[in-house]
Amino acid sequence: MNIALVGVGKIAKAQHVPNIVASDAWDLVATVALEGTVNGIDSYTNFDTFLQSRKDVEVVSFCLPAIARFDYAVKALRSGLHVMLEKPPAATIAEMNYLRDFADECGRTLFTTWHSQMAPGVRPAKKWLSDKVIKEASVRWFEDIRQFHVSNLDEESGSGGTKRNQDWIFEPGGIGVFDTGINAISILTEIMPNGLRVTDASLVYPENRNQPIAAELVLNSTINASFNFRHEGPPVWDMHITTDQGEIFLERSATILTIDGKKIDLGPSQEYAHLYKRMAELIQAGESEVNLDPLVLVADAFMLGTREVSNAFNF
Amino acid sequence: MNIALVGVGKIAKAQHVPNIVASDAWDLVATVALEGTVNGIDSYTNFDTFLQSRKDVEVVSFCLPAIARFDYAVKALRSGLHVMLEKPPAATIAEMNYLRDFADECGRTLFTTWHSQMAPGVRPAKKWLSDKVIKEASVRWFEDIRQFHVSNLDEESGSGGTKRNQDWIFEPGGIGVFDTGINAISILTEIMPNGLRVTDASLVYPENRNQPIAAELVLNSTINASFNFRHEGPPVWDMHITTDQGEIFLERSATILTIDGKKIDLGPSQEYAHLYKRMAELIQAGESEVNLDPLVLVADAFMLGTREVSNAFNF
Repeated sequence: MNIALVGVGKIAKAQHVPNIVASDAWDLVATVALEGTVNGIDSYTNFDTFLQSRKDVEVVSFCLPAIARFDYAVKALRSGLHVMLEKPPAATIAEMNYLRDFADECGRTLFTTWHSQMAPGVRPAKKWLSDKVIKEASVRWFEDIRQFHVSNLDEESGSGGTKRNQDWIFEPGGIGVFDTGINAISILTEIMPNGLRVTDASLVYPENRNQPIAAELVLNSTINASFNFRHEGPPVWDMHITTDQGEIFLERSATILTIDGKKIDLGPSQEYAHLYKRMAELIQAGESEVNLDPLVLVADAFMLGTREVSNAFNF
Repeated sequence: MNIALVGVGKIAKAQHVPNIVASDAWDLVATVALEGTVNGIDSYTNFDTFLQSRKDVEVVSFCLPAIARFDYAVKALRSGLHVMLEKPPAATIAEMNYLRDFADECGRTLFTTWHSQMAPGVRPAKKWLSDKVIKEASVRWFEDIRQFHVSNLDEESGSGGTKRNQDWIFEPGGIGVFDTGINAISILTEIMPNGLRVTDASLVYPENRNQPIAAELVLNSTINASFNFRHEGPPVWDMHITTDQGEIFLERSATILTIDGKKIDLGPSQEYAHLYKRMAELIQAGESEVNLDPLVLVADAFMLGTREVSNAFNF
């Protein structure tokens, strides 16, 4: 199937492009972005022009910031395209409810992707936890925002120079530290044997920013999750879960799994390859997969949470 | 049917009790509250004791702050009771999703009430708007929090003395100015011909409080809604909607309706009488009515919104 990428930033270049290109199921035939292109692929800067010019495209995959997606996604569905959304799928829950209903109306596939749910530790962890009672859990999702959220616009050419900070993370729809933290939340909603709800939350806002740079969540009064974008050194993306029948430890974003002290052999991580495989299956089956659970928990944390102000943050 | 009230605060005494008592469909047989009782009605301070002692109760109506409801609602449903929830129905969307599914599992009626949707102007406004295109709308929801959110604990005895400020409004789950503003939002979600989504939001937090005291929302890029708890003087609860075929003006929380300059005869406002009538119908029909749209828009506003800090607020 012919596919176009909308938004050509860091994650598009690092994951979407190589995984589309490596797959027999897909032909990357166009990109749409205000800036950013992919060598050898037709590029458009205007979405309407793209839609009118490229009737050969059947699927669009959105990798631009969530705040900018809604109008484009509506136009794409109305034009008969299937739509795939990088996480977080939208800036608001109401938008997603609308898109879900509209995709149904249009008879098109809509897929809200959560790449971390495709990490190799997720399925075995879910299976192991399915008949256990959670006693407590501790989640740490720490990374240096300056390491992971600064784009190098010249990466491809190797000239290495122009940097672009992902300031949109701190703008409306950017969800701050949850841009990364929602990966942990998407793993939790997938592996935990019971539905999750936020029972306590505190959010830390830099005095010069509109979205949180750190947060503490309590889920179901038993799961403590800590998120921090101001972490220095290597990232920490792990979760330690104690049950009535032993304990489980997921490290490096669920790519390493230890059950009761024994490391489980998982094989390689191929998150985006799995996402694009799943998208092809969904279209084949004429189905959508719309999972709002992680975004609901983030919205709930914003609604419920207390607020602290910390010192200003600049990239 | 035998009904019990859980939470006996200002709105319970002003609306729930008189409307239950006035209805042939209901017998108020118990109240459950840490403080607050209703003259002549059995009262309990412990929910478990109440459940064990009063097998004659078929329905519980929750009027206590949203943050405290979830565990009680789960217990009530598990015990075979039907559940009615004062707005806002819960502290989080995830809670409501869980309760909706759990009520289905238990085969019990769950009703998320939105009393302002029962205001007499809502149905005619909805009908009139149904075939129109919204050009713009302006919503003002201003009231003096000191007038409407201070309980007089001795109101019944007439001794008038002990006041209780509703500080919970500024605590987690209290949703600040949206405790009132969600009434406007519930009217909008009911009368507007298209689905609503938050496209812009700014929230104003007193420096000593964790929930906003004022807010500006933009819905669908065309509806401007302004909420303020620091308003002095009589409340303003109105909405002015301009369409491609004329304009409509709802005043005093949709109890006064003017279409193209002509005032429409609406009859009296009986919001809570209608809610309890509806609950009886739902139970009769074996159905639930769970509407999360207003709460989703509030959560979205929290997630999307920019933040300002204003001077401290004390009652």
